[in-house]
Amino acid sequence: MPIDIVVDGMGSDKAPESEIRGAILACRHLDVRVHLVGPEDILRPALRQHLASHNLQNKHLPVFIVPASEWISMDDKAAQAVRAKRDSSMRVGLKMVREGRAAAFFTAGNTGAAMATAKMVLGMLAGVHRPALATVLPTTTGSPSLLLDVGANVDSDPDNLVQFAVMGSIYAQNVLKVRHPRVGLLSIGEEDSKGNTLTHDTLPLLRALPSINFIGNVEGRDLYNGHTDVSVCDGFVGNVALKTSEGLVKLFSVLLRDSLKSTITAQVGALFSRTAFNDFKKRLDYSEYGGAPLLGVRGPCIIGHGSSNEKAIMNGIRVAAEFAQAEVNASIEAALKPPATT
Amino acid sequence: MPIDIVVDGMGSDKAPESEIRGAILACRHLDVRVHLVGPEDILRPALRQHLASHNLQNKHLPVFIVPASEWISMDDKAAQAVRAKRDSSMRVGLKMVREGRAAAFFTAGNTGAAMATAKMVLGMLAGVHRPALATVLPTTTGSPSLLLDVGANVDSDPDNLVQFAVMGSIYAQNVLKVRHPRVGLLSIGEEDSKGNTLTHDTLPLLRALPSINFIGNVEGRDLYNGHTDVSVCDGFVGNVALKTSEGLVKLFSVLLRDSLKSTITAQVGALFSRTAFNDFKKRLDYSEYGGAPLLGVRGPCIIGHGSSNEKAIMNGIRVAAEFAQAEVNASIEAALKPPATT
Repeated sequence: MPIDIVVDGMGSDKAPESEIRGAILACRHLDVRVHLVGPEDILRPALRQHLASHNLQNKHLPVFIVPASEWISMDDKAAQAVRAKRDSSMRVGLKMVREGRAAAFFTAGNTGAAMATAKMVLGMLAGVHRPALATVLPTTTGSPSLLLDVGANVDSDPDNLVQFAVMGSIYAQNVLKVRHPRVGLLSIGEEDSKGNTLTHDTLPLLRALPSINFIGNVEGRDLYNGHTDVSVCDGFVGNVALKTSEGLVKLFSVLLRDSLKSTITAQVGALFSRTAFNDFKKRLDYSEYGGAPLLGVRGPCIIGHGSSNEKAIMNGIRVAAEFAQAEVNASIEAALKPPATT
Repeated sequence: MPIDIVVDGMGSDKAPESEIRGAILACRHLDVRVHLVGPEDILRPALRQHLASHNLQNKHLPVFIVPASEWISMDDKAAQAVRAKRDSSMRVGLKMVREGRAAAFFTAGNTGAAMATAKMVLGMLAGVHRPALATVLPTTTGSPSLLLDVGANVDSDPDNLVQFAVMGSIYAQNVLKVRHPRVGLLSIGEEDSKGNTLTHDTLPLLRALPSINFIGNVEGRDLYNGHTDVSVCDGFVGNVALKTSEGLVKLFSVLLRDSLKSTITAQVGALFSRTAFNDFKKRLDYSEYGGAPLLGVRGPCIIGHGSSNEKAIMNGIRVAAEFAQAEVNASIEAALKPPATT
């Protein structure tokens, strides 16, 4: 029984090409039906052309177009665009999830706008005070590590961080398939004494939580060494950590390319080791993990990178489907719902 | 006229070997006299042996041993060790700077202990409220970028960040030789509206400062792309950014090694591109920049990485000398000293 996933057709830097190719790829490899949202006059001819070029026009792939007259670009100011563009592809797509016509939403568009629209259209899960954006990072051990919040909130309080820990742990267990995920509090040293006011106030609350496997403070380097499965922090800190990582990956690529170019033997070597370099880039590539889940809103929502290619889009659709099928949100509500007053 | 630099002989992971080799290297290549501090019974025979193995025993290299009976290890709790070990190599070394017997101090030891000892022994520069640890990062453009604070303080207030901006700008100009350093406030978006309470409160203060070239908010990725010369943040955030980067560099090395091993052609390629790989690692290597200056204390103080090898130690000594010769601290005092009451 295929699962219905709604995809913002106008999100990525190469929209709608990446989205259309990704949707076709997903329908060929996964048990999904993809609803692409955006202006019909842009999406329909583009979809027809891609199907034709793959000789797929008679295959009846379950890719459907859902009309929306507007879309939010990367350069739009999130808060403003969300208010002004009432028929945006994001809003129309998220409404389909709210109305039960699709099980999950994926966009590779403007992250701020996607978070704001999801919060507005879907609302929050019962008991959740603030949503958190989580990102999946690669590690030296090969198992993924989850970092949240990476930018949905700033100036979080200890209760927010406790909820992030619970939501992250449930997502890691159910979608990333980590048994008993180790949850760490991102700080500046392992000892309890290391940290700031926020981490000092949060530590005892996390220690007292029976539902998670809390391992205490972790440091920035632990995000990539496999010592923790879920790392919890304020969205300002998480966003800086994530973007610093993106900047460093870019620096790596530039330096490695320069170094490979700089000597004749290296040039010969570069030819031979291109396979290795491509393999390396693939291992490092966040997009393999399909994007960042927005946790705490009333409907599975995955936000991919703007630079997503067709494969990243397909992975995003796959993860959105897994997010929905694992019933993560029901588990989060069960864990965080305030007890009914009797 | 050689400049006197005092070096903690017992700081690095491979102390005193790295320190002794680094001191010898420095004396051979730079116009410095190096005072190595630590237990005489450890340092003297080790120095003699290294000089002998280099056939340098008759060269009268200006390496001197300054006795100290104790040292602080990486595993020591900083605050405790600073109080308990009254004759530590760090304390004895820093006293030499305070007493004017050396122009600057370098250690590759316990960062927390070095900061606390420097603050205690040297005291603060007039007008400076809190010291800041700054780190020099490589960028895609090849020019270094300075990030501060990376862990001397947590829960900084806007006035602290303003002082970090002034100190970082003076250091970048005088030691890193950047003309009109561009100073950015590390945040989660370029627009003024992006950030947390601390950055929102700090922005107008930095804008109002005539003595620095303030360019507004910068993001994590800007630390490595050359868009900013000096980036200012709270020590918690800076420490997370720095350690996240260290973790990612480690991941990068592991993945690249695995990828190079994984195919036969890649193995052949690896042989050819070893030059390139070594070149790449060197470009990425923080130790080329010689360590992290501790700004705001009454005496030039550079803290190197625990894994410093002899070359990193030599670079640390070089930068410590440059820090002293550029009269950075006089400039910082001139900029931050409160006006005398009349």
